[in-house]
Amino acid sequence: MKPATHRQLGCLTLLLGSLMSGPASAQTPLDAKASDPQVMGWMQGFPPAADKQVTFNNYLRFPHTRWAFSHIRELLPTATVGRAGTAASPLPQAPRTDIDALEFQLTDGTSMTWAQSLDANYTDGIIVLHRGKVVYERYMGALQADRPHMAFSVTKSFIGTLAAMLVEEGVLDAQASVASYVPELADSGFGDASVRQVMDMTTAIRYSETYSDPGAEIWEYSRAGNLIPRPADYKGATSLYAFLQKVQPEGQHGDAFAYRTVNSDVLAWVVQRATGTSFAELLAQRIWSKLGAEQDAYIVVDQLGTQFAGGGMNASLRDMARFGEAMRNNGRFNGQQIVPEAVVADIRGGGDPGKFASAGYTALPGWSYRNMWWVADAEQGMFAARGIHGQTIYVDPTAEMVIARFASNPIAANGANDPVSLPAYAALARHLNAR
Amino acid sequence: MKPATHRQLGCLTLLLGSLMSGPASAQTPLDAKASDPQVMGWMQGFPPAADKQVTFNNYLRFPHTRWAFSHIRELLPTATVGRAGTAASPLPQAPRTDIDALEFQLTDGTSMTWAQSLDANYTDGIIVLHRGKVVYERYMGALQADRPHMAFSVTKSFIGTLAAMLVEEGVLDAQASVASYVPELADSGFGDASVRQVMDMTTAIRYSETYSDPGAEIWEYSRAGNLIPRPADYKGATSLYAFLQKVQPEGQHGDAFAYRTVNSDVLAWVVQRATGTSFAELLAQRIWSKLGAEQDAYIVVDQLGTQFAGGGMNASLRDMARFGEAMRNNGRFNGQQIVPEAVVADIRGGGDPGKFASAGYTALPGWSYRNMWWVADAEQGMFAARGIHGQTIYVDPTAEMVIARFASNPIAANGANDPVSLPAYAALARHLNAR
Repeated sequence: MKPATHRQLGCLTLLLGSLMSGPASAQTPLDAKASDPQVMGWMQGFPPAADKQVTFNNYLRFPHTRWAFSHIRELLPTATVGRAGTAASPLPQAPRTDIDALEFQLTDGTSMTWAQSLDANYTDGIIVLHRGKVVYERYMGALQADRPHMAFSVTKSFIGTLAAMLVEEGVLDAQASVASYVPELADSGFGDASVRQVMDMTTAIRYSETYSDPGAEIWEYSRAGNLIPRPADYKGATSLYAFLQKVQPEGQHGDAFAYRTVNSDVLAWVVQRATGTSFAELLAQRIWSKLGAEQDAYIVVDQLGTQFAGGGMNASLRDMARFGEAMRNNGRFNGQQIVPEAVVADIRGGGDPGKFASAGYTALPGWSYRNMWWVADAEQGMFAARGIHGQTIYVDPTAEMVIARFASNPIAANGANDPVSLPAYAALARHLNAR
Repeated sequence: MKPATHRQLGCLTLLLGSLMSGPASAQTPLDAKASDPQVMGWMQGFPPAADKQVTFNNYLRFPHTRWAFSHIRELLPTATVGRAGTAASPLPQAPRTDIDALEFQLTDGTSMTWAQSLDANYTDGIIVLHRGKVVYERYMGALQADRPHMAFSVTKSFIGTLAAMLVEEGVLDAQASVASYVPELADSGFGDASVRQVMDMTTAIRYSETYSDPGAEIWEYSRAGNLIPRPADYKGATSLYAFLQKVQPEGQHGDAFAYRTVNSDVLAWVVQRATGTSFAELLAQRIWSKLGAEQDAYIVVDQLGTQFAGGGMNASLRDMARFGEAMRNNGRFNGQQIVPEAVVADIRGGGDPGKFASAGYTALPGWSYRNMWWVADAEQGMFAARGIHGQTIYVDPTAEMVIARFASNPIAANGANDPVSLPAYAALARHLNAR
């Protein structure tokens, strides 16, 4: 397996884990079996022993993460995303026993089985739907079917989808400037960007998510959002939106795709201003309650109650799969059109691959980014929500396959998962459609 | 209306509100209409204006409380109490329009209508069941039917009921000492108390909930539990259980009832040790999932994840009513025996009224305390879960009536609610059974 490049590590998503543990490459982390939270004995007993405690001060350190990502609400304040009061929508079962042994080749030519791949990238849970039926479902470590897991940047695809729905309805003008919705951002780097540029992350701002740089903006952003402890002498922003106002311009909006978490929170700010409704409420009203979700989802909030749209959503794996299945079916699920067909088509159409190519994602040739979804070229047809540490909702319409996965890979970037995950998903797509 | 006595104010329950606002009598608080959180404009907009923010630093100050008590999870870390994945159990509707105008007499001889009483004691929501049907249901301010509200000491009746169920099953020995379950408490004031004495709050310990005394133990307890901010130079306990170990003996166990929140957390510690299961999980498995609850409930946790059994539960009003209805029906609800009949009988039988009398609750003549429920004498037959600021589940089996109420009375004691609430409930019981 090729090591992930610095570019992949540095640019992919909010590198929260690394903020507390230092560069992931500085140590050889425990493997999946050794770092299993049950094996580690995290948070067992009343109270847990001093050396087995996962707290706000250490939860983003691996291997603490393997427990924490399934217990975020016990560590941070959160807002509910309510399900409907009815029974959950059915997820028909058609389990297949031939998947674990499925062998596939990595890009470096070595081979691996599907079962091995789950540990190789620290899977906490994975569910596979084929033609709408559950063919595979596994939970490891601290995750259980009824327990929400931190989705990290998969969150972005939810705010992106909601924004695209509002554009489709004419509630939100994608060509309008950010400042026209959020005057407080007028003097920031986002002020003169269009809503569309924010939705597709082609804004040009000075903002680094390079965790190895103590001066990188990502540090202050995480402290502003109360995601990591603040030093006693902390002088930075004390809320997500206070931080966004400080972000400076750099370059020309629209020139190139650059993956920066702050765009998602700018988009949420715009959406909330345009609708007068919070992200969590919009998500509940328009998606969660309609999916027939099994569990309430929730979103991490900062100390002013602002919901972290860049990466703060937590949900159950099955509910993530339901949303993926809705997207595979052009927005229709549970007997109703949840996301307009035109919005799904817009996402599936992708962004400008030329603007994406310069970002250097070698594992994603021909892909692009649209409405906060990652989109393969038309020939391949896949599109995905992707989050740090290996979270994904992966939709392959051609293969009629949806995969939802939660993970706690010690390396905090999709670049560490893609060399295993993407060949595994592709092999499974071929396998499921072999007959 | 007689002012509540110091004894009533000081001893009834955890006086969280007062810890941040100072003695309630020092000011004349806004009335219910003026302090309505919609009128106040708390937490409107993205982000809310600086003078309209409810945060961890001010949420227990009235009138901020009127918003906060319906949004606790957005302010504090919490653990889920999961409902079942099925549809909620039915609550048949039989609304009556004649209740608001019902007039009743206060103990001082003045009269008031039911509708007036709701504002008089800052009701956030109230639901009345008569013979299992909803005859009255109102939500005010920030509360909504699908939104959990802080239950404060109503929480105690849940841990008390669970403990009584475990005693009934023989899992827990009520005559055994606290130290036999929790050796860490051996040298504390609780060590040689029996589990029964803890369940009935007849432990003899040095512990004051007199908020006007800056040296009262309640202050450190709240800071230990992370319920209120800690000063920069804080040197006290940093977890609920660390604090409990410091509590000193004073007097003779079993001599008298003394309402002290710490007993509930000692009981939860015992129960969790005896079962290996957390309070929230026990509550979910044995009660919440069986009630057919509409909403997940949740419990506030300290920084070690310890669930605050003394007052940290949050639940929807309808689900509280479902539990009250189960208790009215001798433990049976939603087609199953949820709480054993013998346990309900044990609660309804009450504690020793002689030991209760010395505590000086003039509004509760003849009452006693058993398994963390407040119990009227056999002739009256009512029993209730009661929490600071006016929370209650009030069960009147003779009248076939159950009331669940959430409130945010600025005076942080039942003593401030009882002079209005108890006559109102009694009048309604008579009214509903007048035909």
